[in-house]
Amino acid sequence: MFFASDNTSAAAPSVMSAVLAANEGYARGYGADPIMARVTAELRAMFEAPDAVVHLVATGTAANALALATFIQPWQAVFCHRHAHIAEDECGAPEFFTNGAKLALVDGAHGKMTPEALTQALGSTGESGVHGVQRGILSLTNVTEAGTVYTPAEIAALTALAKERGLPCHLDGARFANALVATGATPAQMTWQAGIDAVSFGGTKNGCLGVEAVVIFDPAKDWELQLRRKRGGHLFSKNRFLAAQMEGYLQDGAWLHLAEHANAMATRLATGLAAIPDATQRHPVQANMMFPEWPEGTHERLEAAGAVYYRFPAPAGREGARLVTSWSTTEADVDAFLAAFAT
Amino acid sequence: MFFASDNTSAAAPSVMSAVLAANEGYARGYGADPIMARVTAELRAMFEAPDAVVHLVATGTAANALALATFIQPWQAVFCHRHAHIAEDECGAPEFFTNGAKLALVDGAHGKMTPEALTQALGSTGESGVHGVQRGILSLTNVTEAGTVYTPAEIAALTALAKERGLPCHLDGARFANALVATGATPAQMTWQAGIDAVSFGGTKNGCLGVEAVVIFDPAKDWELQLRRKRGGHLFSKNRFLAAQMEGYLQDGAWLHLAEHANAMATRLATGLAAIPDATQRHPVQANMMFPEWPEGTHERLEAAGAVYYRFPAPAGREGARLVTSWSTTEADVDAFLAAFAT
Amino acid sequence: MFFASDNTSAAAPSVMSAVLAANEGYARGYGADPIMARVTAELRAMFEAPDAVVHLVATGTAANALALATFIQPWQAVFCHRHAHIAEDECGAPEFFTNGAKLALVDGAHGKMTPEALTQALGSTGESGVHGVQRGILSLTNVTEAGTVYTPAEIAALTALAKERGLPCHLDGARFANALVATGATPAQMTWQAGIDAVSFGGTKNGCLGVEAVVIFDPAKDWELQLRRKRGGHLFSKNRFLAAQMEGYLQDGAWLHLAEHANAMATRLATGLAAIPDATQRHPVQANMMFPEWPEGTHERLEAAGAVYYRFPAPAGREGARLVTSWSTTEADVDAFLAAFAT
Amino acid sequence: MFFASDNTSAAAPSVMSAVLAANEGYARGYGADPIMARVTAELRAMFEAPDAVVHLVATGTAANALALATFIQPWQAVFCHRHAHIAEDECGAPEFFTNGAKLALVDGAHGKMTPEALTQALGSTGESGVHGVQRGILSLTNVTEAGTVYTPAEIAALTALAKERGLPCHLDGARFANALVATGATPAQMTWQAGIDAVSFGGTKNGCLGVEAVVIFDPAKDWELQLRRKRGGHLFSKNRFLAAQMEGYLQDGAWLHLAEHANAMATRLATGLAAIPDATQRHPVQANMMFPEWPEGTHERLEAAGAVYYRFPAPAGREGARLVTSWSTTEADVDAFLAAFAT
Repeated sequence: MFFASDNTSAAAPSVMSAVLAANEGYARGYGADPIMARVTAELRAMFEAPDAVVHLVATGTAANALALATFIQPWQAVFCHRHAHIAEDECGAPEFFTNGAKLALVDGAHGKMTPEALTQALGSTGESGVHGVQRGILSLTNVTEAGTVYTPAEIAALTALAKERGLPCHLDGARFANALVATGATPAQMTWQAGIDAVSFGGTKNGCLGVEAVVIFDPAKDWELQLRRKRGGHLFSKNRFLAAQMEGYLQDGAWLHLAEHANAMATRLATGLAAIPDATQRHPVQANMMFPEWPEGTHERLEAAGAVYYRFPAPAGREGARLVTSWSTTEADVDAFLAAFAT
Repeated sequence: MFFASDNTSAAAPSVMSAVLAANEGYARGYGADPIMARVTAELRAMFEAPDAVVHLVATGTAANALALATFIQPWQAVFCHRHAHIAEDECGAPEFFTNGAKLALVDGAHGKMTPEALTQALGSTGESGVHGVQRGILSLTNVTEAGTVYTPAEIAALTALAKERGLPCHLDGARFANALVATGATPAQMTWQAGIDAVSFGGTKNGCLGVEAVVIFDPAKDWELQLRRKRGGHLFSKNRFLAAQMEGYLQDGAWLHLAEHANAMATRLATGLAAIPDATQRHPVQANMMFPEWPEGTHERLEAAGAVYYRFPAPAGREGARLVTSWSTTEADVDAFLAAFAT
Repeated sequence: MFFASDNTSAAAPSVMSAVLAANEGYARGYGADPIMARVTAELRAMFEAPDAVVHLVATGTAANALALATFIQPWQAVFCHRHAHIAEDECGAPEFFTNGAKLALVDGAHGKMTPEALTQALGSTGESGVHGVQRGILSLTNVTEAGTVYTPAEIAALTALAKERGLPCHLDGARFANALVATGATPAQMTWQAGIDAVSFGGTKNGCLGVEAVVIFDPAKDWELQLRRKRGGHLFSKNRFLAAQMEGYLQDGAWLHLAEHANAMATRLATGLAAIPDATQRHPVQANMMFPEWPEGTHERLEAAGAVYYRFPAPAGREGARLVTSWSTTEADVDAFLAAFAT
Repeated sequence: MFFASDNTSAAAPSVMSAVLAANEGYARGYGADPIMARVTAELRAMFEAPDAVVHLVATGTAANALALATFIQPWQAVFCHRHAHIAEDECGAPEFFTNGAKLALVDGAHGKMTPEALTQALGSTGESGVHGVQRGILSLTNVTEAGTVYTPAEIAALTALAKERGLPCHLDGARFANALVATGATPAQMTWQAGIDAVSFGGTKNGCLGVEAVVIFDPAKDWELQLRRKRGGHLFSKNRFLAAQMEGYLQDGAWLHLAEHANAMATRLATGLAAIPDATQRHPVQANMMFPEWPEGTHERLEAAGAVYYRFPAPAGREGARLVTSWSTTEADVDAFLAAFAT
């Protein structure tokens, strides 16, 4: 009953098998290995973007910060949701990698920025000439930090506002697979066809040991991204072990099957919670993460039954939780959790 | 016949076994896993430093840059050898992580700075008040980039000069095991007993997939190092897979056995080369890396026989090479390479 | 009828006289001139802080950014009002000088943060361990960007909240003299006695050519501030010309007399505006800056009469303005401006 | 007898007159004043560069660091002489403003880099792909830190090597006027006609209070330079007082006349020293700065006579000095200094 985070899960079978298989003989370092060549080709095909820049790093924070820094100047702003991972959970990595850019926080319910809020933010930044920080890039997250999902059309509506201002657009896809499964969109539909210029394509949370791909649709960014990755200490000498994870992750659509399972377990969990008296959801449940609330005293009961998850503050008399399902969550886990309410 | 770098080798058996074993069930993220607790205890015991700060990252560049940044200010200088990895092979990562510190380059034959050269460098920095960059930290590398090895006494002689100026001292130990094997020193003798305050304890080149420990002997540095690691995108959510590598690496002295083998293969190779007419060594061969030179035309012959390594420019009529042995180099590899000279 | 900004005014007589007087013979550079010694002593006496660190720079942005950077780490947050000068008008200088700190924006009407809003902001930052930016420093502005004034008691109430968290406190005093005149407080009452650790003591807007003093009440910060100033390109070789401005500014209380006049002109202007039909004030007028609104079409009339000022958007049918008076505003300017409404 | 530095001199009459004249009425801030418009036109005419970007700052360190940062990326190298001001006397300002670029030090006698040394430095940087810092910009200084002067032809020979590599070229002209006077070159001949893309055009040392122009011959750099200047805290609100200095400096060729005088005084001083037994010059005397050496014990005699200057270490039995003449040095100063040797 581990619902603390999808990153508390182990690696999925196809991923670990690929790592094992890669552990054979010699391979040129720093990305010149043959697995990386295959992975690059696969990701380009998958994104229907034959010229895309593809490089691997081991953490989502690195992927996001490197992608953003490759697009903007230190005196520019990143427009992101007030509760975006880059704003709240990366200890200032975007500021570090961009050499001091500013995050301009955009509001919106359930973790999703609204076109109105983005319009307002875009309009109140960069309007005072040399005195103010300039507009730089839009960064969206899908699945959001609230567990909700943008459709490609919603993404396109937001990126259109950015593009009117000439801004590039980034997608933090730490849970990209879960968002695709939730919407039925293809990778291309969710990204460049919806105005996205760079994606952090997550693997870690959905069954890898630690690998994320930075995918940029403008080939002119390749060299700068590579230099920033190296300078950031994120270029692996034994890159084959990153590439192998990604290859195992993509193999036979494993990445989507893993996310389908995680989302299905979330649906099962949410359905069960809907039947629990007085349990409510703070946000719509659309992928593999939810934020239920219940009456005070419930935490103790659930934890006594072995449940592990993060608590969130809730209004008086209530208690909040964050529950995340993953590729390895079982129906038994879900059912045991639900049963614990009755104890 | 892969002598390009020790980082072209695969992972050693005990390391990969530990990774596999770690791939079971759930584990708290970000370093709170039980394997990390064991690894911390083991490394503290191994270094005879019960209060040492121990954190893992995946690359040597990250380990070095984070360690340096935790000790110095942006307006200070890092004293390092002119050909140190931090000076030549990290694309400015130390400058990036320190927010613009300067590397003050120190001379010395065969990759080792001399006390005289360090004295000179220390004396010509930080002597013009507010106008010049201030003295910050000494960074040594062992095994050096030239494949030579400092003894603990040599390290102590250099750190003593730094400490007269009140400076802390860092050791880039990307090939720490090879240096220990070469000198017979203990980890403590090679580090804090010789005046070292922080070590980048390398695992990747010597049989891991990608893991290095930053070990700092001053517990007061713990929190800053953790914040810098996170902000640099180097905190792994599934840290258990870094910790498992390190545990497998340390298990039953595997790390030293692997290095013993690598060094022995280098000795075998150097001994063989000594018998090759006109082949000379640019630097003394003391660990697992060497820089031989031979007459023009030889490269083609060796490469035709299947040898892979880096070429270096050499004076007219000569050709230089960098040959690195690793835990996986075989006697057959070495002998085949030597035999290729006769073809 | 120049109300665009107090920085469009010339230098006051005592300031220019001091600059002229300083232009005699030779003087040691970089702050070692005798005028600087006198200015340091005067400012320490004036602030009743005999050990205060006192250094001069030429711009308010430099003063603020250097003061902040001397107190915080790159992974920390500066708590400031949403519309603070450091947030909106310095093109990211605080982020640049701090190497990427984050500004945490605090709300509050009329340019003043409320204790409640600050409490909320302090409570929602730095609470997620290594994952989030840490709390760093509180920065207040007096006179605020809205032309309002904090009393020493109001400042003390806010700094008390910061100090509960162990945070230092900075005061952006670009219009410090105007704030003192408005409240009757002494420099000490408005700063260290109210919990302020560092002040940007402004001179430029109130009659200097370009000089601001960074005053820090903790002598241990001296050397770091000096290094940061030099590294930022803000150490003047001919510092005597900064020091002379400050000496002329302080001479016989000139600085307070200049601010008294500016504030009096603002009062005269506000009184006059109160009699203009349909002219309203967006914020209370408490020092030398105001934000009136009037019916559409008024701007043209005022500008035709020769008035110069910044326009601000206002709700439908209305127009907003920012009017700033200075030491050189005359009663005739004010009266002519008011008369222009009737044209 | 003040020979410590040309920056210990006061401001020249035409400069101070212009500042006084500018202290009249209101002027738009931040560079929108009419004096700035005139100064921009004058500098463009003077450099025969009608599209040149021209902006003013108050210190040479700011001018250099901003110019360099506008041309290079953080992962690039600045090629400069080992003893360049940017390398030794700016406390790392270039590293700070470029966000961590590296200075690649080039050797050469008497403060001047040789084409051979530059060729060597260019060839040993940026040759290891993503692993090493990339080549960024060449920065020359004229007058050099050794008091010597590059001719336009010498500059062209060095910039040609940089341009072969596609690099832009910067000239630190803190003593630009003295270099022009020494060579008879025009501003255009010494700069863009010799391959220079950006100049720090110094005013402070040669008779201003504190002003330097950054002149960039590529108009596309304008906006970035302006943003960097603002973000660095170097945009003056009362810019008219910088502009006025520059206008007074340029008026009727004052700047060249001032430098002619300074150089003439240096010639007189060097000629006199040539007649002093055992006084030798470390470098050729070509502008307004010299580094003589004399027998031990001489310093005391000269200082007792009232001479003020910096001492430099010299080989056993000798003492070194740096003597700088300025626009305000008198023949009487020089003669009194020379006479002091006989006391």
